[in-house]
Amino acid sequence: MSIEIKNLSKNYKSVQALDDVSIRFEENKIYGLLGRNGAGKTTLLNIITNRIFADRGEVFIDDIPSKENDQALQKVYLMSEKNFYPDKMKIKDIFRWTGEFYGKFDMESAMNMAEKFELSTNKVVKGLSTGYTSIFKVIIALSVNTPYVLLDEPVLGLDANHRDLFYKLLIEKYSEKPSTIIVSTHLIEEVSNVIENVVVIKKGKIIKDETREELLTAGYTISGSASLVDQYILGKSVIGLDVLGGLKSAYILGELEKDKLPEGLEVSRMDLQKLFIQMTNA
Amino acid sequence: MSIEIKNLSKNYKSVQALDDVSIRFEENKIYGLLGRNGAGKTTLLNIITNRIFADRGEVFIDDIPSKENDQALQKVYLMSEKNFYPDKMKIKDIFRWTGEFYGKFDMESAMNMAEKFELSTNKVVKGLSTGYTSIFKVIIALSVNTPYVLLDEPVLGLDANHRDLFYKLLIEKYSEKPSTIIVSTHLIEEVSNVIENVVVIKKGKIIKDETREELLTAGYTISGSASLVDQYILGKSVIGLDVLGGLKSAYILGELEKDKLPEGLEVSRMDLQKLFIQMTNA
Repeated sequence: MSIEIKNLSKNYKSVQALDDVSIRFEENKIYGLLGRNGAGKTTLLNIITNRIFADRGEVFIDDIPSKENDQALQKVYLMSEKNFYPDKMKIKDIFRWTGEFYGKFDMESAMNMAEKFELSTNKVVKGLSTGYTSIFKVIIALSVNTPYVLLDEPVLGLDANHRDLFYKLLIEKYSEKPSTIIVSTHLIEEVSNVIENVVVIKKGKIIKDETREELLTAGYTISGSASLVDQYILGKSVIGLDVLGGLKSAYILGELEKDKLPEGLEVSRMDLQKLFIQMTNA
Repeated sequence: MSIEIKNLSKNYKSVQALDDVSIRFEENKIYGLLGRNGAGKTTLLNIITNRIFADRGEVFIDDIPSKENDQALQKVYLMSEKNFYPDKMKIKDIFRWTGEFYGKFDMESAMNMAEKFELSTNKVVKGLSTGYTSIFKVIIALSVNTPYVLLDEPVLGLDANHRDLFYKLLIEKYSEKPSTIIVSTHLIEEVSNVIENVVVIKKGKIIKDETREELLTAGYTISGSASLVDQYILGKSVIGLDVLGGLKSAYILGELEKDKLPEGLEVSRMDLQKLFIQMTNA
């Protein structure tokens, strides 16, 4: 059971949005799909769900080609930035309507989540702020119970409290009823606590497909006084530096030699967002 | 020299957006203005810059009442989410136009930043993505050289790389030519490295006005195996918990007693975003 993508390519006029992409999203895993603006994340998610068509290549959902195949597509729910719901429809009616299309939609769970987010389900789509527009779609995604759930920028417009609540509900849902979840987001350090696998896309190509653990153990962070840090990093592979008052942090690729660590320097884990920036800059 | 706010109140129909707010933003400091969606941040920034009017109270800019006083208002630049620029105007013309209004606008610096962000200044406002719409306004804010710069959601739509670049340019600019900068944002943990002072607004009231250092030293974070953490936190003031695989983190208010720290637990600094969520939930 998986979403399998084979040799997908897609051009928009002169821009190559996807360039021979092949990747497998396995059963019951949480993926972070990370990329810069314009890297091809949304194009990939839209092709998987048949909203747009590839120029070349194929998508298989549980071994069935997804192209215009309703049986395969019913296994996938895509929460996207774009709004396909009628402006004047009430949220509770959208829930109901989703339940008719996706047979396993859990209305009780959806209404509970709405309460937690303080979303009034009597409101119409048009009456919602950017944050609540994300929230009602996130609730559907977490209640729809398809084997594959794709989330494109789920926390757009959410304040820190609501983002925190979303991550908690996502993990709760996943623990109770595992599914394959693909989260595309720019808030990489935040989502780092949630995802197990990291897929990095750059200019239409997959440049990384590893577990978060593999990526984060590829290096470490060191902090201390600027002079100590500057001395320590000589000859090491430094992918980033931060200075904050007197404190300097360096993000270093490679293995830590603990016995060679000078007094006064603190070690912490690699920062996924810093690593991402380094991988995708320029 | 300061922005001084005295007893500001503002109602929208039945909603009290600001409730007797008094606060002073001092010379050459960087403030984080933090609050949930709807807490009153944007209302406060808009009243300071005279875009909307308070029901009661006053704003003084360098001791001069700001209300309909161009001399005072020329000292303040507000970068806001709302777009007041003509759709068909080219970015480079907006730069020029801003230079005519704000005499100290640094065109060379603006064009340099545009290059770093890969913003084509020949484009018109309407042709920009959400990210680049934030970027061109951020560039103006960092080049305008007013004594007071207010940034309302400056990183909206920016990917991690561009956010990183923005924070770096902000700090660079501030080091070269200090000014009072107020940043309103939902990405609290990220901005935590940039701000010196934290102002928290909740339901129209200022509930916190402290240095970041004071806030972060009010507690600490402890991580380790779930069983060790659960045992350690008994009787302590825990404001949040995160579980990630086998690792558990607890955010604790109070002073750390180092000699009572069991083997196997790691200590790190308090997380500003967790602290904020705790202060503003419910």
